[in-house]
Amino acid sequence: MLSRKIYGLILLFILQIGVSLAQKPKYIFFMIGDGMGLNQVNAPEVYLASKQGKNTVFPLVFSTFPYATFATSYSLSHGVTDSAAGGTALAVGKKTKNGVIAMDSSRTESYKSVAYLAKENGLKVGITTSVSIDHATPASFYAKQADRDMYYEIGKDLISSNFDFFAGAGFLRPNTTFKKEEAPSLFPQFEQAGYTLVNGISEYQSEKVKSDKIILMNNKGADNGALKYAIDQVEGDLTLSQITSAAIESLTKNNKDGFFLMVEGGKIDWACHSNDGATAIQEVLDFNSSVEIAYEFYKKYPEETLIIVTADHETGGIAVGNGSSTLRLKNLENQKISQSALSTVISDFRKNNPKASWDDVKALLTANVGLFGAVNVSKEDEAELNKAYEKSFVNHEQETSKSLYANDDKIASLSVKILNKASSISWASGGHSAAYIPVFAIGAGSELFNHKMENTDIPKYVAEAAGWSW
Amino acid sequence: MLSRKIYGLILLFILQIGVSLAQKPKYIFFMIGDGMGLNQVNAPEVYLASKQGKNTVFPLVFSTFPYATFATSYSLSHGVTDSAAGGTALAVGKKTKNGVIAMDSSRTESYKSVAYLAKENGLKVGITTSVSIDHATPASFYAKQADRDMYYEIGKDLISSNFDFFAGAGFLRPNTTFKKEEAPSLFPQFEQAGYTLVNGISEYQSEKVKSDKIILMNNKGADNGALKYAIDQVEGDLTLSQITSAAIESLTKNNKDGFFLMVEGGKIDWACHSNDGATAIQEVLDFNSSVEIAYEFYKKYPEETLIIVTADHETGGIAVGNGSSTLRLKNLENQKISQSALSTVISDFRKNNPKASWDDVKALLTANVGLFGAVNVSKEDEAELNKAYEKSFVNHEQETSKSLYANDDKIASLSVKILNKASSISWASGGHSAAYIPVFAIGAGSELFNHKMENTDIPKYVAEAAGWSW
Repeated sequence: MLSRKIYGLILLFILQIGVSLAQKPKYIFFMIGDGMGLNQVNAPEVYLASKQGKNTVFPLVFSTFPYATFATSYSLSHGVTDSAAGGTALAVGKKTKNGVIAMDSSRTESYKSVAYLAKENGLKVGITTSVSIDHATPASFYAKQADRDMYYEIGKDLISSNFDFFAGAGFLRPNTTFKKEEAPSLFPQFEQAGYTLVNGISEYQSEKVKSDKIILMNNKGADNGALKYAIDQVEGDLTLSQITSAAIESLTKNNKDGFFLMVEGGKIDWACHSNDGATAIQEVLDFNSSVEIAYEFYKKYPEETLIIVTADHETGGIAVGNGSSTLRLKNLENQKISQSALSTVISDFRKNNPKASWDDVKALLTANVGLFGAVNVSKEDEAELNKAYEKSFVNHEQETSKSLYANDDKIASLSVKILNKASSISWASGGHSAAYIPVFAIGAGSELFNHKMENTDIPKYVAEAAGWSW
Repeated sequence: MLSRKIYGLILLFILQIGVSLAQKPKYIFFMIGDGMGLNQVNAPEVYLASKQGKNTVFPLVFSTFPYATFATSYSLSHGVTDSAAGGTALAVGKKTKNGVIAMDSSRTESYKSVAYLAKENGLKVGITTSVSIDHATPASFYAKQADRDMYYEIGKDLISSNFDFFAGAGFLRPNTTFKKEEAPSLFPQFEQAGYTLVNGISEYQSEKVKSDKIILMNNKGADNGALKYAIDQVEGDLTLSQITSAAIESLTKNNKDGFFLMVEGGKIDWACHSNDGATAIQEVLDFNSSVEIAYEFYKKYPEETLIIVTADHETGGIAVGNGSSTLRLKNLENQKISQSALSTVISDFRKNNPKASWDDVKALLTANVGLFGAVNVSKEDEAELNKAYEKSFVNHEQETSKSLYANDDKIASLSVKILNKASSISWASGGHSAAYIPVFAIGAGSELFNHKMENTDIPKYVAEAAGWSW
């Protein structure tokens, strides 16, 4: 027994030496799947396998990381967090009230994010997302505002952050304050602060040499609220992977001191609010492509890079499996566009074909989501779809299905619901849930992510790994 | 850069020494929550906090373990496993077809479980559960049979295992073979093989001195299929905690060579099959009480003990949160008995009160599940309940709601459904789901459980930690 104790002490000593010698990361990727609970990671893994006729899982790049655990997501005010309190927890290491960006619940004290810590410690900082740059999750890293809807004020905080690289769809209220007063446009102010504004990846390629401080936005004329869903993207659309590559390129240019890069897959959440399984899965796979880019970087500098992949909360209470032991996620292959895009297709079809028959609409659904084709529709479900058709096509009563980020045509939302059911995907609600969030880590300092934690521990451990104090 | 590489090599060397010096566990607890997905761990954590009016989580003992991660659960035949293939994966480290116990898919080759490895390496072995001893999960550790329903044959395998301690409710088919032929009772055969059979914890206390090989079963006259649900237990009922304590006591008696103890919380799964949230949460808390007993043991022998807490699969696709940011799990406090017990109460009430009014039944529901009392019932839900009342109380048509392990009165299942909805609990189905399973670990070798893994890796890592080869 004594020898065991001595062994134990020697082991402890040796491990302590090991930890003190451990490399500190100088390249930090903090990657957030908005709304990506554990089941949102599982679903694409099952889907990829089922496309090959297998009942196994095909891992995502981040689910093979050497550390994987999970964390709480509740906020200070609610059992179920929103993206503001969730983003704040991940950014500043403190829980706050739903709706608040990097401030305390009483909204008097503002908090410093891990991105600011990185900047103070000499790293360049990039904040990127597939939604608008002033949205709650990215904002939590550079802004401090009492309300997530203070988009103009959040934009002003971007300037004072002096961070090096921003990217996303654009800005939601560049000319209007929270109090709905007109205000000087943010864009010339960004430029005065030294940022080069670029629209789309081609413009980035031609402008990148000129500036070390860049704000990369969606293509001119494209949506400033979000990139297109991955499932809807076509050649030429700005993608999260392009943003991630541009961020790495820009942050490493003329810079030997490392970087902190936050990348948000922001529309996983949006697709889950709409309970649109196929679109959500493609969003996770799209986010995974950005993680792959980070992972390629890690492979070049394995001892100096830390990648964290996590989420702010789970959305929709998705379950993979709805009763049978046989999973039918392969059916989701039949969905060619998002519910949101399908909604537009149906609405346009109605405008252009006011006398469209039920069979015409069925054919449209077969082409876009596989219903009445590869995917059987029960009599009850067909009756419900037909009722929506009668109402909107025959009686010209507009009927929509509202979720947080969309107000979709009823036929579109019903069709996606039927396809999800036929694909073994079930949803608890159109809101967020209290599910644990996944945490995956690789690289220098990743060994800290080995136990169940509070979401607020995640940025604390990043700082600890990097040797920064708050 | 060179100095970094040298540091890296030194670190690697030091860590390798550390690992080789690491203590091997001689006391191994392998604890399985049947049907306990990550949300089944989260739900009681949220519930305990909400009982105190908090929107945080109160951790279970095992969710504070220093290692926490998750694993796949798919079987060789299906995306969604059953408890036979799930138990087999955890016991033998190989995936098989749903329904098969510790054999390959073609049911020709039989596999050796980690419990047999433990026995071969000189440890005593205990296999315990809150359901019947011949049920799929415990059977996977000591039996090898082509079909989980071969209860008699599984009982025969218990004898050939020569393991030291078994406990659970009893045996389902002690006299009848799988081919429905009568056969010699298992019980005298157990005794001939040297086992002392004891019923209930008092008999165990008086008999334990006489034997090193014990089969502990439910109290005489009690259910041989399962212990009572924790929510329904009264003083004198056999509990999983008593079983766990008895197992530790028996396995350490006259034994300096350590033990391997499997403990299954088997009815988490059953409650989830019935979508009975309050009962499921109490089952997880009851299972947690057994883990607490293991944890107390660990604290005495921290360098020699390994505790693994995991699950075979998730059941029901439970979600915590069904739309609102405010969680109302506190409402579950109003449920005093399981849906199954409520079903009996309603059925007895109907027999004894054939002229019971709707108000009488409402009063019964208020007393047992809080409906129409602390928990509001919507008009639509009351109408549905009332319809079931009219059908069964007035028109004397029996109406039941069948799930895998129960066939409950319709009024009981509707009531529990309404209470769950009012308590922010949502269910995807009455079957298993493909969700990842949680893995928690503490003690010697626990550092192996730090990344997402296959369920089959779990017993392999236990063997690796203990230094056993298959």
